[in-house]
Amino acid sequence: MTTTRSLLDIDDLTNEEIDALFALAREFAQRPTPHSLDGRFCANLFFEQSTRTHVSFQCAQLRLGGNVVNLTPAQLSLATKGERLDDTAVTLRALGIEVLVVRHPLAGAVAELAAAFEGCTVNAGDGTNAHPTQALLDAFTLRDLLGDLRGRRVAFVGDIRHSRVAHSSMRLLRRYGATVLGVGPEGFLTGADVPPEVEIVRDFDGVLRDIDALVMLRVQRERFEKMPMDDGAYIAGYQLNDDRLARLGARTPILHPGPYNRGVEIVDAVTLDTRWRYREQVRNGVLVRASLLHHLVRGW
Amino acid sequence: MTTTRSLLDIDDLTNEEIDALFALAREFAQRPTPHSLDGRFCANLFFEQSTRTHVSFQCAQLRLGGNVVNLTPAQLSLATKGERLDDTAVTLRALGIEVLVVRHPLAGAVAELAAAFEGCTVNAGDGTNAHPTQALLDAFTLRDLLGDLRGRRVAFVGDIRHSRVAHSSMRLLRRYGATVLGVGPEGFLTGADVPPEVEIVRDFDGVLRDIDALVMLRVQRERFEKMPMDDGAYIAGYQLNDDRLARLGARTPILHPGPYNRGVEIVDAVTLDTRWRYREQVRNGVLVRASLLHHLVRGW
Amino acid sequence: MTTTRSLLDIDDLTNEEIDALFALAREFAQRPTPHSLDGRFCANLFFEQSTRTHVSFQCAQLRLGGNVVNLTPAQLSLATKGERLDDTAVTLRALGIEVLVVRHPLAGAVAELAAAFEGCTVNAGDGTNAHPTQALLDAFTLRDLLGDLRGRRVAFVGDIRHSRVAHSSMRLLRRYGATVLGVGPEGFLTGADVPPEVEIVRDFDGVLRDIDALVMLRVQRERFEKMPMDDGAYIAGYQLNDDRLARLGARTPILHPGPYNRGVEIVDAVTLDTRWRYREQVRNGVLVRASLLHHLVRGW
Repeated sequence: MTTTRSLLDIDDLTNEEIDALFALAREFAQRPTPHSLDGRFCANLFFEQSTRTHVSFQCAQLRLGGNVVNLTPAQLSLATKGERLDDTAVTLRALGIEVLVVRHPLAGAVAELAAAFEGCTVNAGDGTNAHPTQALLDAFTLRDLLGDLRGRRVAFVGDIRHSRVAHSSMRLLRRYGATVLGVGPEGFLTGADVPPEVEIVRDFDGVLRDIDALVMLRVQRERFEKMPMDDGAYIAGYQLNDDRLARLGARTPILHPGPYNRGVEIVDAVTLDTRWRYREQVRNGVLVRASLLHHLVRGW
Repeated sequence: MTTTRSLLDIDDLTNEEIDALFALAREFAQRPTPHSLDGRFCANLFFEQSTRTHVSFQCAQLRLGGNVVNLTPAQLSLATKGERLDDTAVTLRALGIEVLVVRHPLAGAVAELAAAFEGCTVNAGDGTNAHPTQALLDAFTLRDLLGDLRGRRVAFVGDIRHSRVAHSSMRLLRRYGATVLGVGPEGFLTGADVPPEVEIVRDFDGVLRDIDALVMLRVQRERFEKMPMDDGAYIAGYQLNDDRLARLGARTPILHPGPYNRGVEIVDAVTLDTRWRYREQVRNGVLVRASLLHHLVRGW
Repeated sequence: MTTTRSLLDIDDLTNEEIDALFALAREFAQRPTPHSLDGRFCANLFFEQSTRTHVSFQCAQLRLGGNVVNLTPAQLSLATKGERLDDTAVTLRALGIEVLVVRHPLAGAVAELAAAFEGCTVNAGDGTNAHPTQALLDAFTLRDLLGDLRGRRVAFVGDIRHSRVAHSSMRLLRRYGATVLGVGPEGFLTGADVPPEVEIVRDFDGVLRDIDALVMLRVQRERFEKMPMDDGAYIAGYQLNDDRLARLGARTPILHPGPYNRGVEIVDAVTLDTRWRYREQVRNGVLVRASLLHHLVRGW
């Protein structure tokens, strides 16, 4: 019986906890979720803009019968002026909040809040550091599509350096025994940007026929000043275009954490392709987050 | 048995559907609404500021027991950077949203979202194009006050060109057999601004004694650059002032979609007059929207 | 049987009503609150930023089963352009809102809304004027800690001039028979800034051993242009630092309305001190506000 009460990084969860979490998420897909947050209060603190993740957590909380309080960036930027993050955490706990979901532009800021919050804290993305619930939904979706992931080859393509999704998802997929490839130009990917056993690949075309799943990443222009190469060269080398779609395995699933930029990392045809699994990812995200919140509050 | 699942324009509803909708709204005025949205998720996407319409939809959704997720302009302006409207719609559906209420500054933007959203989309106002739920609440209020609308003369006064309310309401009142007058200066009203059978009137004073209902409109300064005439001349010609109040029929209801600007289209005395029906409009708005959402989700 | 339906100022409540309110708040601390707002609608209009008070009211409303609609500063600043406050109040009532909680940067603005709102209005802070629910939670906390307040000496320290908290709390504590001291420099405190019977003290050190409770106040830089003295002199004279902590009575509770600024009015050690009662204040705030809303809606 473990006692994980917060999720800051994917390594906070044991394999057994993740198994329990996925099993429950599969149940939630079949029937109404129990009201395990009935009478409890959740606060969503999003210091960065978010539609997908913010709504996903809200839906998960409401499905579990929780009371939801949202604090938006506009409120937070001003309201917390002169108030330290740990003091905000103490205040929210005293107000009766039991579950705190936080997104913040600085790596480590969520851990700072969690250290002061005597409840369940969930990292909804901190800077370029970690995004553990996205890792959970990616792994859940891939296991659903591919079954056992041991020896399966999963390629992450694009701006890996600035992707907290890649950082968290690669680590989790390695724990499942998958072979993980990082595909991108040097300006977005060196050995320092990925866990030790990840293969670094510069030639996207060279691996297209030889992978079991593809995770396309958004170029996170808000997190750096200058593109490491011009847009044309990036697109030539790393866009998933019609030609690459044609050479990709006929059943190789294509994932994307969203939001996706048509004309940059993918062409329009990708979103119409049967291998495009973005919708499943989003759908699974609510199930996986509801399951996580249930376990954090009720135990494992 | 029709299958209307979205409301983009007032013409999306048949007469029978509107009859059913009004009958149910009348029931909702008498007793608690059924929880027909229990366990279902509604998202309100307001790309434009709104108090009245936004709160009205929220109240309608909550009265029906729905789960409500609000996306504000600040969140949306940034969150959707680089994400197309149709992709946002796909994401929200995958998140489990079944009812999407959208206000947007561009005519046609709501239809773009609706085309990609596999659920119920409701237009809460798109640019100067349409505002069908306001048309419903206006017609509901007028039928309540005047009974059968055939042959009744209803005058819309002011900035008709930029009023999505006028565009939608005039069309619906015509369907009920009302005679519709557009009253305003040329800069706000030509034949191109109104449906074919609407009478264009320049002389407000000339029709005051000869109408059964009056709909005063706000000058929508945010939608054009330059007033077509100076403020003094506009007020002289089209403000509902003490003198015009005195000459208006003793039982002629005065409507306004709000927000109203005292000192511009109306004087203070209007808001104290027994013929001023703004409160009933607002109250009916919640009933009519709750009835609409019930039917869109549960069928007609 | 009184009929208080709104709370604009602490003097709106009789002693008997406050006794009833505190008794119910004590019950709410022990067991789940009744759903006395079931099916009713509350709107929170915060024209000023707020985390603490806004979340506190939301939690109180949700605990009572109420439906909650939040209007944020960004929505309100634009949405109400050209619409008068009293007209916004009329609209919200017509939409079905029964409880209106308002914070506004201008003294008197909440009273203006309340005059037009035919429901329950609660002042959540208007400019430097009043913050009656903070006064209630302060008095509730002090009675809980000290018992009977007659003859007890309570010192408010710092920027008393700009503190709506001090203005409301001092008055309420006087009603309980406490001796109230105002401690601060002339630029923040003259006889005009406090109720008549408050003792004005310039020398913080001189009263440290001689008080039963301490309320430290934030310097409200957003409400004035120039500090009345340089920061160093202010800190030297009025910061609660290690030295003063050592000389303060061993059981003297320290309160603060929050947000607190470490390094200005308090040093870090204060927040680790057993006499620091900030958490109890915040916790009591939800109980007291839930009790208030229950009584305003259901009667006393």
